[in-house]
Amino acid sequence: MPLDGGYDMAQTRGRRGGRARRHRERIGAPIVQQRYITREIPVYELLDEAGVDLLHDTSMQILEETGIDFLDDDACRQWKEAGADVTGRRVRIPRTLIENLLAMVPESYVQMARNPERNVVVGGDNTVFAPTFGSPFVRDLANQRRYATLEDLQNFVKLAYMSPVLHHSGGIICEPVDVPVPRRHLDIVYSHMKYSDKPFMGVQSAPERALDSCRMCEILFGADTIRENTVMTSVVNCNSPLVWDGSMLGALRHYAEHNQAVLVTPFIMAGAMAPVVTAGAIAQLNAEVVSGLAYAQIVRPGVPMVYGSFLATVSMRSGAPMMGTPETLQMIYAVGQLARRYRVPLRSGGMLNGAKIADAQAAYESMQTMTATLLAGTNFVLHAAGWLEAGLTAGYGKFIMDTEQVAMLQSFCRRLDLSENGLGLEAIREVGPGNHFLGCAHTRRNYLEGFFIPEIADNNSFEQWQAEGELTHDERAVATARRRLEAYEPPPLDEARDEALQDFMARRKAELPETVS
Amino acid sequence: MPLDGGYDMAQTRGRRGGRARRHRERIGAPIVQQRYITREIPVYELLDEAGVDLLHDTSMQILEETGIDFLDDDACRQWKEAGADVTGRRVRIPRTLIENLLAMVPESYVQMARNPERNVVVGGDNTVFAPTFGSPFVRDLANQRRYATLEDLQNFVKLAYMSPVLHHSGGIICEPVDVPVPRRHLDIVYSHMKYSDKPFMGVQSAPERALDSCRMCEILFGADTIRENTVMTSVVNCNSPLVWDGSMLGALRHYAEHNQAVLVTPFIMAGAMAPVVTAGAIAQLNAEVVSGLAYAQIVRPGVPMVYGSFLATVSMRSGAPMMGTPETLQMIYAVGQLARRYRVPLRSGGMLNGAKIADAQAAYESMQTMTATLLAGTNFVLHAAGWLEAGLTAGYGKFIMDTEQVAMLQSFCRRLDLSENGLGLEAIREVGPGNHFLGCAHTRRNYLEGFFIPEIADNNSFEQWQAEGELTHDERAVATARRRLEAYEPPPLDEARDEALQDFMARRKAELPETVS
Repeated sequence: MPLDGGYDMAQTRGRRGGRARRHRERIGAPIVQQRYITREIPVYELLDEAGVDLLHDTSMQILEETGIDFLDDDACRQWKEAGADVTGRRVRIPRTLIENLLAMVPESYVQMARNPERNVVVGGDNTVFAPTFGSPFVRDLANQRRYATLEDLQNFVKLAYMSPVLHHSGGIICEPVDVPVPRRHLDIVYSHMKYSDKPFMGVQSAPERALDSCRMCEILFGADTIRENTVMTSVVNCNSPLVWDGSMLGALRHYAEHNQAVLVTPFIMAGAMAPVVTAGAIAQLNAEVVSGLAYAQIVRPGVPMVYGSFLATVSMRSGAPMMGTPETLQMIYAVGQLARRYRVPLRSGGMLNGAKIADAQAAYESMQTMTATLLAGTNFVLHAAGWLEAGLTAGYGKFIMDTEQVAMLQSFCRRLDLSENGLGLEAIREVGPGNHFLGCAHTRRNYLEGFFIPEIADNNSFEQWQAEGELTHDERAVATARRRLEAYEPPPLDEARDEALQDFMARRKAELPETVS
Repeated sequence: MPLDGGYDMAQTRGRRGGRARRHRERIGAPIVQQRYITREIPVYELLDEAGVDLLHDTSMQILEETGIDFLDDDACRQWKEAGADVTGRRVRIPRTLIENLLAMVPESYVQMARNPERNVVVGGDNTVFAPTFGSPFVRDLANQRRYATLEDLQNFVKLAYMSPVLHHSGGIICEPVDVPVPRRHLDIVYSHMKYSDKPFMGVQSAPERALDSCRMCEILFGADTIRENTVMTSVVNCNSPLVWDGSMLGALRHYAEHNQAVLVTPFIMAGAMAPVVTAGAIAQLNAEVVSGLAYAQIVRPGVPMVYGSFLATVSMRSGAPMMGTPETLQMIYAVGQLARRYRVPLRSGGMLNGAKIADAQAAYESMQTMTATLLAGTNFVLHAAGWLEAGLTAGYGKFIMDTEQVAMLQSFCRRLDLSENGLGLEAIREVGPGNHFLGCAHTRRNYLEGFFIPEIADNNSFEQWQAEGELTHDERAVATARRRLEAYEPPPLDEARDEALQDFMARRKAELPETVS
């Protein structure tokens, strides 16, 4: 499949950030979706080449000398056959083997959506944004914290579907704790298929759940289609430090065998699960990621995989995880450089924070993280909307306010317009010293494009804000979430496939236990 | 004066971000002040060289063809003598003249403080952080919005004095509206001299107020000292588009004649005071700044001056100013590149936002702006703490939470430690797969340095946060402001000089009217 699904930013500029789009939104006209963004601005290179090489070398030393545990007999056998030194389940991997396997990872790939208009290209200069992931709690539409339900998950799927700046529906946005654990994955995957037509993730929490995700995609897309194409980008975590457990490896293997992409992601709280030094945490993470990416290439050479990273630091005072702190930014930038060195797609960052509510702390930390995420050249941004409380809570208000900030950052990724019109000399000649530009010909011609105008952020006068009830940003955002959900209409889904999906789910639910044995 | 006052970041690392410093703070030990930061990481280059050249060329075209008004007879005469084309008060300046004058601006300069330990170097890879400026209102210690008073100004001076990450005391942090306008400048300048020993700004709102600021500095520093040294960095604004008014030019001239630095700053709401296109707004701002910088060099060749910029966009829907939006970030980065092209120090950005309260909007927008400010290579950050409501309000809570974020960004500006200890291989060898790092020898040796731990941001568990009263970030920050002010102790001030300053003020107050005529 050609990688030409790129979104023409210049051509559709007015529809993306402009007044016209927002006007249409207000009157309920269809939302103009974006497929993904293509970055037109440079990445930020924190380290020089020698620094990146040194981090790489250190990771290679870790894999060669200390090694990494693959807690799975099949994986150990495969590593041995590939040329690694395997003792028990400790795998020591020569750097040439890692490098040869890494070279097989595609630089980018297409993830198909059931609506081909929503296909995304993961890799290169593209960035795909997806909702938060894995929260057991929500801050709900009454802004109360409670356990998440399947209805919440579906609500977030709907909100992501309605957001032009989220290109991907995500996966376990929140945990539907009202559904038994062994059956939960079926409802999660079905919710994405039913309530959105954007690309999504399969479930990874057990190998058979990954397999069920593949089976459901065979029904939705057709078995032929999924054999040849990637229709899921799921996530698999490493147990840091340096352990790939059997369950995750099983899921990774199922996805790889089915040619389905995975965000191969260590989830590191540096100081506890990695050294208490920034560079050391990066080197360890890098060793973990590349060993996972390499293993997937053993399973199926050329299978699309994503360099995944999640890095927080741990407070040496309280043991609490911390995000948006200076070391996490350094990690995000350095990891970006490593992924570019290997020419593999990168997943990193998001709107991460440790705040309990969507207050100033949440926003500071989220924006610290997200700016680095973007300028590091991240290709897949999980947690782009809704994350609160170190991931324990998915917030409806946070979700909405994050998407507005994401919209602004996406707009920032466009090349500065240095055309004759963009330089505006004509306006300056017409207006001259001491006058204003509000009515001049150049302004009249350009004001519809104008500057980005946020909807949730309030830039009105104090008096107007006061008259409107002195609402916080969070209160405005939660109200917007409620309004959007009321306006939701599902994308059409072929009835026969929907029925087949429901039949499959009913059969599997009957087979699967209520509780994990 | 040699530019060797640099702050050794590595040597004092533990005192800056580490647990030890925070521990000492809690037990009331002296705060270890920082003089300024020296950026050890690269700047972000948004545009290529051709783009920067094009913006420069456009500015030169503006100054050559449209020209700029200098509403002051002396200035027009001086421009004519220097070789500009002057018609009435419209000055058209050949680019060679601009370029020759710009070349005289020092790349960096020392601003002396009355405590030489607080001297700052403005320019090069250094960044100096100063409080917000010019707000008529405050969000006070009860988090209520009301008119600002002299006591508020003094409180902010005290808070800035106590913050290790603010290196400069600023100027009219808030407007002391309880003091008559014509006499206000005396109390403002005296407050900085009395309640802090950090460098500060003179007042610019009228030429004689600039002169009074110089006179007071002669008393504080000695007339000989100020003749040879720069002891103030003040601010002067252009009336965009393309007008330097007589009052501002008079203040600029007094400061330049006294060898005192000025942030030469257009204050632009693009769309109203500049074209509604981003590049056009930058080109106009650049024309305004360089004409001001060049004029100062006519007044006194070699006088230290700073390339100043303040850029917001205007909503074409409501007319409201907007900050932290994508175009303002592009502007900040582009302006950084222009200032580097001219090799002059840069003032830009800050914690800008349009929020009425210190909520998520305030934080998102502030952080968007501040990250760009830092990565653009800004040398002087006005509005680094306290800004709210498009500058109309200075917030006590916002001030405190901003300084914490500034501390983190300053820490991010340090080079990533890639030493053997920083790479932590020793820890990984010791701990190995599947264990944790909390007790290992490497962690025990490094945990005091550890990772940055914020004080105001709450990373504790939900349950602990709940038990502590479910405070917002703003509520925690306001409480911190109250505690800090209670703990404030003034730096010693020579009694004779203090008396002389008070005598001068009393005399001037008797001379000056109660109201502006």
